[in-house]
Amino acid sequence: MEADAAWLPPEVFRPLGSRRVLVRGTGPLVDTVAAEVADACRRHGGAVLSGAPDDADLVLEADGGSGEGYTLARRDGTTTVTAEGDRGLLHGLFHVVRLGEDAFRGDRAPEEHRPALALRMLDHWDNVAVHPVMGQVERGYAGGSLFWADGRARDGLDRVRAYARLIAACGVNAVAVNNVNVHATEARLLTDRIGEVARLADTLRPYGIRTHLSVTFAAPVVLGGLETADPLDARVRAWWAEATARVYAAIPDFGGYVVKADSEGQPGPFAYGRTHADGANALAGALAPHGGTVHWRAFVYDHRQDWRDRSTDRARAAHDHFVPLDGAFAPNAVLQVKHGPMDFQVREPVSPLIGAMPRTRLAIEVQATQEYTGQQRHVCWLGPMWSEVLRFRPDGERAAGRLADALVAVSNAGDDPFWTGHPLAQANLYTFGRLAWDPGAEPGAVLDEWIALTHPGAPARLAEGLHAVLDSSWHTYEKYTAPLGVGFMVQPGHHYGPGVDGYEYSPWGTYHFADRDGVGVDRGAARGTGFAAQYAEPWATVYESPDTCPDELLLFFHHVPYGHVLRSGKTVIQHIYDTHFEGVAEAEEARRVWAGLAGLVAPARHARVADLFEEQVRCAREWRDQVNSYFLRKSGVPDERGRTVY
Amino acid sequence: MEADAAWLPPEVFRPLGSRRVLVRGTGPLVDTVAAEVADACRRHGGAVLSGAPDDADLVLEADGGSGEGYTLARRDGTTTVTAEGDRGLLHGLFHVVRLGEDAFRGDRAPEEHRPALALRMLDHWDNVAVHPVMGQVERGYAGGSLFWADGRARDGLDRVRAYARLIAACGVNAVAVNNVNVHATEARLLTDRIGEVARLADTLRPYGIRTHLSVTFAAPVVLGGLETADPLDARVRAWWAEATARVYAAIPDFGGYVVKADSEGQPGPFAYGRTHADGANALAGALAPHGGTVHWRAFVYDHRQDWRDRSTDRARAAHDHFVPLDGAFAPNAVLQVKHGPMDFQVREPVSPLIGAMPRTRLAIEVQATQEYTGQQRHVCWLGPMWSEVLRFRPDGERAAGRLADALVAVSNAGDDPFWTGHPLAQANLYTFGRLAWDPGAEPGAVLDEWIALTHPGAPARLAEGLHAVLDSSWHTYEKYTAPLGVGFMVQPGHHYGPGVDGYEYSPWGTYHFADRDGVGVDRGAARGTGFAAQYAEPWATVYESPDTCPDELLLFFHHVPYGHVLRSGKTVIQHIYDTHFEGVAEAEEARRVWAGLAGLVAPARHARVADLFEEQVRCAREWRDQVNSYFLRKSGVPDERGRTVY
Repeated sequence: MEADAAWLPPEVFRPLGSRRVLVRGTGPLVDTVAAEVADACRRHGGAVLSGAPDDADLVLEADGGSGEGYTLARRDGTTTVTAEGDRGLLHGLFHVVRLGEDAFRGDRAPEEHRPALALRMLDHWDNVAVHPVMGQVERGYAGGSLFWADGRARDGLDRVRAYARLIAACGVNAVAVNNVNVHATEARLLTDRIGEVARLADTLRPYGIRTHLSVTFAAPVVLGGLETADPLDARVRAWWAEATARVYAAIPDFGGYVVKADSEGQPGPFAYGRTHADGANALAGALAPHGGTVHWRAFVYDHRQDWRDRSTDRARAAHDHFVPLDGAFAPNAVLQVKHGPMDFQVREPVSPLIGAMPRTRLAIEVQATQEYTGQQRHVCWLGPMWSEVLRFRPDGERAAGRLADALVAVSNAGDDPFWTGHPLAQANLYTFGRLAWDPGAEPGAVLDEWIALTHPGAPARLAEGLHAVLDSSWHTYEKYTAPLGVGFMVQPGHHYGPGVDGYEYSPWGTYHFADRDGVGVDRGAARGTGFAAQYAEPWATVYESPDTCPDELLLFFHHVPYGHVLRSGKTVIQHIYDTHFEGVAEAEEARRVWAGLAGLVAPARHARVADLFEEQVRCAREWRDQVNSYFLRKSGVPDERGRTVY
Repeated sequence: MEADAAWLPPEVFRPLGSRRVLVRGTGPLVDTVAAEVADACRRHGGAVLSGAPDDADLVLEADGGSGEGYTLARRDGTTTVTAEGDRGLLHGLFHVVRLGEDAFRGDRAPEEHRPALALRMLDHWDNVAVHPVMGQVERGYAGGSLFWADGRARDGLDRVRAYARLIAACGVNAVAVNNVNVHATEARLLTDRIGEVARLADTLRPYGIRTHLSVTFAAPVVLGGLETADPLDARVRAWWAEATARVYAAIPDFGGYVVKADSEGQPGPFAYGRTHADGANALAGALAPHGGTVHWRAFVYDHRQDWRDRSTDRARAAHDHFVPLDGAFAPNAVLQVKHGPMDFQVREPVSPLIGAMPRTRLAIEVQATQEYTGQQRHVCWLGPMWSEVLRFRPDGERAAGRLADALVAVSNAGDDPFWTGHPLAQANLYTFGRLAWDPGAEPGAVLDEWIALTHPGAPARLAEGLHAVLDSSWHTYEKYTAPLGVGFMVQPGHHYGPGVDGYEYSPWGTYHFADRDGVGVDRGAARGTGFAAQYAEPWATVYESPDTCPDELLLFFHHVPYGHVLRSGKTVIQHIYDTHFEGVAEAEEARRVWAGLAGLVAPARHARVADLFEEQVRCAREWRDQVNSYFLRKSGVPDERGRTVY
């Protein structure tokens, strides 16, 4: 099966492609824009103009700058996109595509468009050599890797080019092509295998995507043969400088490095008694002369914690480790922070690190690949979750500066014909790009944009059905899984399906502490781990007390009795029962709605989603029954509505 | 490192090898005996005699029979072993080795020795092709396979020959060389790869070990290209007959087939609406003309059970499936029954199938490989457990017939230099063989025999230390793991370490049903699954009531409140706390005893065991704390002795 067109089916180019279009400007991406326009006009009967015609329907014009912004206007029957540079022109082109016929109606006062975040990046946790446990793509649910197969970069890169085009169309401008867990084979991409990375970069470049590489902090040892990777050692710095120069010789617009150091077993600066700023700066120093950036992940915690020790709190770790280093990072080092303090759960508070390091460049990392949100077998559109994160104000009501410098998502795409395994998971990839461009965008509007592009000319019943299925899907998933922000409760290892005690006695630091009386984690300052106090006001106070803590985060911050009355008026135990019954009912309803869309969606696409809904409903029931049974057995409190709890 | 000598170090041949020995008789194994004697005499200064000397210290003589028995006597300074055949002579030789100098003291009235069970077999769950999840040896904890490496039978078979000698020395006479889960590669051992099996058989034969093969029931389809494996189909029967004839052409003394059918996903007769007797008899019919046997495993149960359904009881399955078929199996079909109704737990009742099929040949299967008993990282000598099973009388006090026709163990040996990973796990392999020969033997005496052979000339302190470490190790392991016969509570998949709810909501049928009030499974007839009623009297009555049920099986048969008072006088909850503290203390004490044996044991051996004791104690503490915490959280009942429960 040919790869799915996703949000760029030929039909969405009809409004543009049936017009008279002039493309003007300099820069390599202007060729890409011109080729897109030519292809659309060839297909849809329009005309590519040249010279200085006065009868163009659309003028796409780039000056020689390097910005990504553009100005859209329409007057006297001509729509114009005037871009700051060729990169902006590409974004402007896709803006016109999104507008469809609206781009060619009436007049339009000049509107400036400019990305809020300069770096909008997809990290691929792709392995070159298939990992014995994690496979070709770690936490990948969409087949194999787009980039790697049979132990090396793919020969045919048509899919990579198509991927670049898709992600560029929603605003992404950077890709890291390998897993942050850098194993032996992948380490060598930095040196003798950089040619393979260069081939990928060549394929991504025409769509304005810069290529980044995950590297191992131990590279000077494992690749360079030095006896140390101490970031303050002159030989180590020299090694990084030379290795980096060779990378730029192969890839002149190389984006930079991504590093997972001192994290879940990866090597890092702690081994040499150095700080993470020391570590990051060593690599930043090597990249700086070439205009590259190091993305240094803040996912540093003790993954060999003793479950008996209730004083250690993994949620605190990133803040504890990194806030003291504010101001110590080089200008071209970006601290990459997971959006929540734990690990991509369906519900977490926003990481207190975000906003707490004003003198450090920050990237927020979200997870498009649905590791903990249904693994692309469940519909779970994450737009509303990401939007909540991006609209969070660390200092509450006060006007606040930009939350971060970059937004990064772990990609959910692979060589699956639908790109993302679950066809509806394409919406996550699209929404990520759009929110990275405009974090203030209304996610529901982005969703409708995705629906309209993916199903051009969709009848209202289809558009409404898709919206209904997707819009509430995150809340539905939250309802039938771990309650009230407590997180995890998944099967160990693969993380799919319920395992209420799956991580309860593990070294991973992810506990719920349920006993016969209550459940939750005390993270307040007064009687808990003090995590709540890592927040600025008003959040420190809001989270400190179970009376003010939002219901959906209650068990993240507080251990409460089953009879504790939520702000909703329900007891915790009844909330658990109710949400789990509701979540399954909602999943069943979504399945019903989808079934009713047969005939309006391409048969293969409809069948794939219909099959996956069977699994989603089965799994949701398993979640419901296991969670409800677990808490009935523990609490002894029956469901007040007398429904079946096993 | 060269393979460990285990219980046949050269020194144990000194008493024999320093004598004047005559070997007489016919049959291929006489050559083996003669070679052993010659080697021992060469090494220790004795003499191999010929003709009819009157000054022999030892005469080993076989008549032309085929039995395995022998008579040992001593008169006028000559010890004689008179065997029923060459196989008996080999056993007699090793008897003399075990006796050591005692074989040559005083007079000895003739003693007849004969194995109680004709077939004493080791099943190897070895894969030819490394399985992506299960590895080279399924549930193997001793390195790779002795037989298979790099996808084929090993080139060098010296280790196989040494293994044959070791297991022959403790009485084993059959080996199945591949996993009962027969994957694609292994299926072909039956046909085009039989030559590899023949090479193994050639290597095992000189020590009287017959070779058996695990085959897939679907062989006529997957190997023969038929569209059916229906055991009543004439073409299927013809296929088995032909395939089997070819096997015997390659291996004239081939032992027969081992079959896991309709079990955990393996194909079987149910697909064709046939019974397991139909299935077994189809293969038995093919084997009968050649003197072969089919071992048909009774491990048939629903492994896709719904945990919500408390009426289905996996423990019942084997009895439910097979008892109605009593009398329907061919004379050369042996029903191979796991010793307990579940799956090799540290404590189970004896399977009610044993004794319930008087017209069917039965093999009891035990597990020497320590899947659920510490995976050869914990010391857990299983002699006492196996002895309890073998001495069980299905009809209680009355004199009973033989419990079974054969004893089979899943082997714990691999290509590890110590054969079994944990050096002390060699005792399990040895004890298995000796109990298979004489199920009534006192396990403690067998243990001392193993100690004396493995450490010839051991000072009393070493012998006593080893005895202390091993003799109670099964009870110690039981104490710190799942309590009172309830079983499982292990980590899913690999089965190592605690996971109290690990299988509680799974499809595997292994539950403990712990809630805030109590724990255990009601398997009585009055208010449970009726499993207890599968036993003959007196056991049906004994197990039916919590008042008469033995403490160690209470939670296997009954769901009781935490305050239930055991026959020991303790409450269930206090028993859980006490045994878990005791179990750890005993493991620590065993570690201490072992540490004190340094200098008395070869350094590599001592170090290996010492390292493993660190892991055992760590893991035992993990079991203690997780089990205790789990039950404290559920019951709310504190330890009456106030020890730390987290």
